[in-house]
Amino acid sequence: MSEQVWDLERIRAHVAADLPVAAVFGIDIVAAQATSARVRLVGTAPIRRPGGSIAGPVLFAMADVATYALTLALRQEDVAVTSSLAMNFLRPAFALPLIGEAVALRAGRTLLTYDVRIWSEAEGPDRLIAQATATWANASVASRS
Amino acid sequence: MSEQVWDLERIRAHVAADLPVAAVFGIDIVAAQATSARVRLVGTAPIRRPGGSIAGPVLFAMADVATYALTLALRQEDVAVTSSLAMNFLRPAFALPLIGEAVALRAGRTLLTYDVRIWSEAEGPDRLIAQATATWANASVASRS
Amino acid sequence: MSEQVWDLERIRAHVAADLPVAAVFGIDIVAAQATSARVRLVGTAPIRRPGGSIAGPVLFAMADVATYALTLALRQEDVAVTSSLAMNFLRPAFALPLIGEAVALRAGRTLLTYDVRIWSEAEGPDRLIAQATATWANASVASRS
Amino acid sequence: MSEQVWDLERIRAHVAADLPVAAVFGIDIVAAQATSARVRLVGTAPIRRPGGSIAGPVLFAMADVATYALTLALRQEDVAVTSSLAMNFLRPAFALPLIGEAVALRAGRTLLTYDVRIWSEAEGPDRLIAQATATWANASVASRS
Repeated sequence: MSEQVWDLERIRAHVAADLPVAAVFGIDIVAAQATSARVRLVGTAPIRRPGGSIAGPVLFAMADVATYALTLALRQEDVAVTSSLAMNFLRPAFALPLIGEAVALRAGRTLLTYDVRIWSEAEGPDRLIAQATATWANASVASRS
Repeated sequence: MSEQVWDLERIRAHVAADLPVAAVFGIDIVAAQATSARVRLVGTAPIRRPGGSIAGPVLFAMADVATYALTLALRQEDVAVTSSLAMNFLRPAFALPLIGEAVALRAGRTLLTYDVRIWSEAEGPDRLIAQATATWANASVASRS
Repeated sequence: MSEQVWDLERIRAHVAADLPVAAVFGIDIVAAQATSARVRLVGTAPIRRPGGSIAGPVLFAMADVATYALTLALRQEDVAVTSSLAMNFLRPAFALPLIGEAVALRAGRTLLTYDVRIWSEAEGPDRLIAQATATWANASVASRS
Repeated sequence: MSEQVWDLERIRAHVAADLPVAAVFGIDIVAAQATSARVRLVGTAPIRRPGGSIAGPVLFAMADVATYALTLALRQEDVAVTSSLAMNFLRPAFALPLIGEAVALRAGRTLLTYDVRIWSEAEGPDRLIAQATATWANASVASRS
């Protein structure tokens, strides 16, 4: 039964239903496989900070949604939560859309560590906007820890 | 001229006008002095994640707004931007409001390093929801770096 | 049987026997309880970097030894390993000794998150040399993850 | 005058003379260019932790030396210091040698942000031992900040 598989379609529907932060900022999941996941920020009205660049929490949300999609694709179940996320803001971003890509550095049974890169679709990944390292932990571990 | 001073009133007005992410999530700035700043998450509709706890990007936004308020109060000018923010998610948060407090570990001329703690108003700071370390840099440094 | 208890004496003997990095840099464990642990850098010949200040890896080792001592005191068994350690270098340190103190932000069953502060004994904790956040994980989790 | 150039030979001599931590652990700089730098841990007696794996501070030192070499090669002067270093320990390492490679995520005038990966020479970079993100700042910025 296809509903059992956490593929791109199911992950998009799940996030659309239960993680409204993604829609609030205009974050689309455009790829989600066991090797990497990608989001695209098309943007909405409230995503800017003073000075006009994209606000830090919006870039953080891109990394969080990308690593969530990757976790679902890797694990094929919805059992892990963000344990830590460290983001470096490298350059201000003005022009949309932005692309965010997450890859696994280590996908263990209870801890998953990811690298995330964010860049402008127009300028490409050689000119990074932000980089993050994220750790996800099984919710059973997180709650009892 | 009181408008020249970055006090709580002016910081609240500035964030209300130019950092809409705060209102989107229901984040109020309740204190902003040169020693510490405090925000309070009263919450809005889209702040939850699957499972019902407060989503990571909302906690990140609390830390970002608290450190922004502290930066304005410390610097008395709007010249710095977030350079990095590393957050540890310690426990899921369900009940509102949440409190977030930022204090300076080191406030230099061009780099400012902050510690942020987030807890539930009902349970208090002995039972932390999240902790973050943030670095802000003068925008002139950030843009030329 | 007192040997069963991970008290300061046993922890010091264990580190002296099996973690030679501590002696290489001149790091003494001076307190280890379930609430906090403290190390003191008295120093050895090879701890400096170009310019004469204490090298980053030495400060990192102070944080690692302090959180190890705290983990042993908290857990009362030697089952956890460092999962991540993020250090902010706030000021150069020249004068010894240095003090490093670790406290738990969250001590769960499988994940432990710590805050570490390092200061000069002469100048005190209001003038921090470095701050770190560390996560330790049960080795069974770490190895299977 | 070739002495003016921070090439591999000069960087190795500089580290050998003024950063003794590298020799204490057996860390060789094997490449240092403006695009990336690489170190190799051949190891010495005191590099192990209880259980026999390589101790965290030794991996941290690899990242610190690799980013230092890259900073010298990029900047062509010795003016920057470590501002932060966040390391994720992904797997225990037993077999030597280990390789550590640093690349720049953003090399600005006053802040430099690096990604570092550490792996076993025998197993290769697809099976990471550790990953780190490091920020270096001009010493003039760091001291006045």
